[in-house]
Amino acid sequence: MKSSNISILGSTGSIGRNTLKVVEHLGGINVKALAAGSNADELYSQVKKFRPELVSCIDDASASKLEALFSSNGASSTDLPRILVGDEGLNEVATFEGVDTVVSATVGAVGFVPTLKAIEKGRRIALANKETLVIAGELMTRAAAENSAELLPVDSEHNALHQCLRGESPKEVRRLILTASGGPFRTKSLEEIRNATVEEALDHPTWDMGDKISIDSATLMNKGLEVIEAHWLFGFDGDRIGVVVHPQSVVHSMVEYVDGSIIAQLGVTDMRHAIQYALTYPERLVNCLPPLDFTEVSKLTFEEPDLERFPNLKLAFDALERGGTVPAVLNASNEVAVQAFLDGKIPLHSIAAINKLLIENHIPEQIESLETVLAADAEARAIAADQVRAVLKAAAPSNSV
Amino acid sequence: MKSSNISILGSTGSIGRNTLKVVEHLGGINVKALAAGSNADELYSQVKKFRPELVSCIDDASASKLEALFSSNGASSTDLPRILVGDEGLNEVATFEGVDTVVSATVGAVGFVPTLKAIEKGRRIALANKETLVIAGELMTRAAAENSAELLPVDSEHNALHQCLRGESPKEVRRLILTASGGPFRTKSLEEIRNATVEEALDHPTWDMGDKISIDSATLMNKGLEVIEAHWLFGFDGDRIGVVVHPQSVVHSMVEYVDGSIIAQLGVTDMRHAIQYALTYPERLVNCLPPLDFTEVSKLTFEEPDLERFPNLKLAFDALERGGTVPAVLNASNEVAVQAFLDGKIPLHSIAAINKLLIENHIPEQIESLETVLAADAEARAIAADQVRAVLKAAAPSNSV
Repeated sequence: MKSSNISILGSTGSIGRNTLKVVEHLGGINVKALAAGSNADELYSQVKKFRPELVSCIDDASASKLEALFSSNGASSTDLPRILVGDEGLNEVATFEGVDTVVSATVGAVGFVPTLKAIEKGRRIALANKETLVIAGELMTRAAAENSAELLPVDSEHNALHQCLRGESPKEVRRLILTASGGPFRTKSLEEIRNATVEEALDHPTWDMGDKISIDSATLMNKGLEVIEAHWLFGFDGDRIGVVVHPQSVVHSMVEYVDGSIIAQLGVTDMRHAIQYALTYPERLVNCLPPLDFTEVSKLTFEEPDLERFPNLKLAFDALERGGTVPAVLNASNEVAVQAFLDGKIPLHSIAAINKLLIENHIPEQIESLETVLAADAEARAIAADQVRAVLKAAAPSNSV
Repeated sequence: MKSSNISILGSTGSIGRNTLKVVEHLGGINVKALAAGSNADELYSQVKKFRPELVSCIDDASASKLEALFSSNGASSTDLPRILVGDEGLNEVATFEGVDTVVSATVGAVGFVPTLKAIEKGRRIALANKETLVIAGELMTRAAAENSAELLPVDSEHNALHQCLRGESPKEVRRLILTASGGPFRTKSLEEIRNATVEEALDHPTWDMGDKISIDSATLMNKGLEVIEAHWLFGFDGDRIGVVVHPQSVVHSMVEYVDGSIIAQLGVTDMRHAIQYALTYPERLVNCLPPLDFTEVSKLTFEEPDLERFPNLKLAFDALERGGTVPAVLNASNEVAVQAFLDGKIPLHSIAAINKLLIENHIPEQIESLETVLAADAEARAIAADQVRAVLKAAAPSNSV
């Protein structure tokens, strides 16, 4: 059933902004609540345009800035939505009364708790925050089943898989095939990847995305996290999930069936497609994107991923196989390491080195509750931070872990 | 529901032989009746192996040869199936008692009447004979609806479309996109095509098929007939059916939805895939083909079809738009002209020239009954034969119509 009343966790990020573009295009959807990142100016524009009843800011400073923007533009207090901050705000936005669909688009582990709360309310979840499934897919999917909450993937790959599985029987699936653009370092040598700058790593060839996910794309960790996400969304083990590098990003993913048939979903590389699909499913509505032009596509290529140059992908399969808290540890370690890379503290290849060390030394626990996950997450973050310091200490910029 | 008892119209052709390979692989399917072409030796092997109760030969000579093969191999009369010949035999095979699925795989218009009779019996039709839909799609689909007969396309493109439409709503389809290999003359000049030999025209780059369909692939008439077939199978007009040249024949066809999403079916180029799909639908069963290997695929290309070098494709869209008996006339003309080309009587480009002349001079009639179609078909064959003679008379091999 098409969404009528939505809230967005992460409204000022790229998924959040694109969701609002889709809402504008579709019409007839009320934006009831927004939880934003630190971009108060963007949030201010969103509030003015979409008139949500509730807004959550990342911290008090952002909230003050938002209020200041309203008063400096002569708004009376009745124009202002209710404003909350931090985790409390995220949870309120996630569970806001009257909302049928929650777009979960925060970056990283912060989205986990509010998304779980939304699931417990039986909301449809348009899920762009892959970490929520990576760190606690078991809790998430169990809660979704118990509360009849629909999980609709917004990631273009999983959205494609969702489309390729329509009208089919899961038991007739041989394997899911996630496509990967290969990122900016697909054709680069190991040495070139070691010396990559932040700018080079952020320069994704086909998708325009946030910083964290761009770095994850450059190291193929993004694809690794997607493999784990696919496991939880669709219920297949790692040996039934494959990855194919497809630099043009035209085929967004595929499903191979037991009869050898492969169903693929193709489209333009614009996340508004997947967002709209998640908001309107099972209907397909006309969207505002240009159609895929086959005279422009002209050539699609495919190659195997190179696990030596991109060890993060292998680590993700390992983490999925070991199960329990291992994927949560991998995710936490990776978040810390990616931030350290973005801050210029460690070289690119140290991300995988830190991740590897973290998961190899982690003794997995079964995930019985949220607390297990959060403890593993916190512990991994602390150890990863130590590792970042160790890399810094080892000093000269060309040194490795 | 998976087929249990089948009969085959055209068992010694390439679709027929591959159907029997699929039957052998799947197990548990009884071959109740076979109607064959002129290859009595092949039919003899099939009868020995699959023990049908009824066999139909193309003519008395073939029937005598089949009987002789049995007696020379010491078979007693009780080993022999019932043997019929010609149209009567085809009709008996098509309507044989206890059969749930009829594989309609004769070449050309001869399959029309028996396939219609099978539809009237409510049989599932695994349809490889595209002419049946081209010449009288209206009668065929109306009869199928009235008799709850399922039409399952065996043509790889339509089978792909059938797969791409699973779980989707027809009203959300923007257009069907048939892929075309482009045939052996895809990169050839108009002049080279004019001077093409029969051998060159039969040399299809990706599919191993019968002579008639190979020539139709070389002229793109095959794709044109498929456009008309797709119209009848799926109910979309010509302006919602596109053709894209895709030389690797890995993407068998695609459906573009109103939200810009394109669902494609990919697989190895072996017709056993589509045959098995038609026999086991809605189930997908493990088949005997190697999976598609993406490291071998490596590159897929797409280009617009060139209607100047391949005028037959344009003629098919024109015939579909004009409707009524025009597609039947195009099909009949094309059958006569292709045979004349195969017999060395006319050059390749005369096929389209004759087809064009035929449909331009035909005054379309509404198709009210089988008789209308058969009359248009017969008249078109006579005029096309005259045109072949005219080309022959104009004499020198390099002359054109």
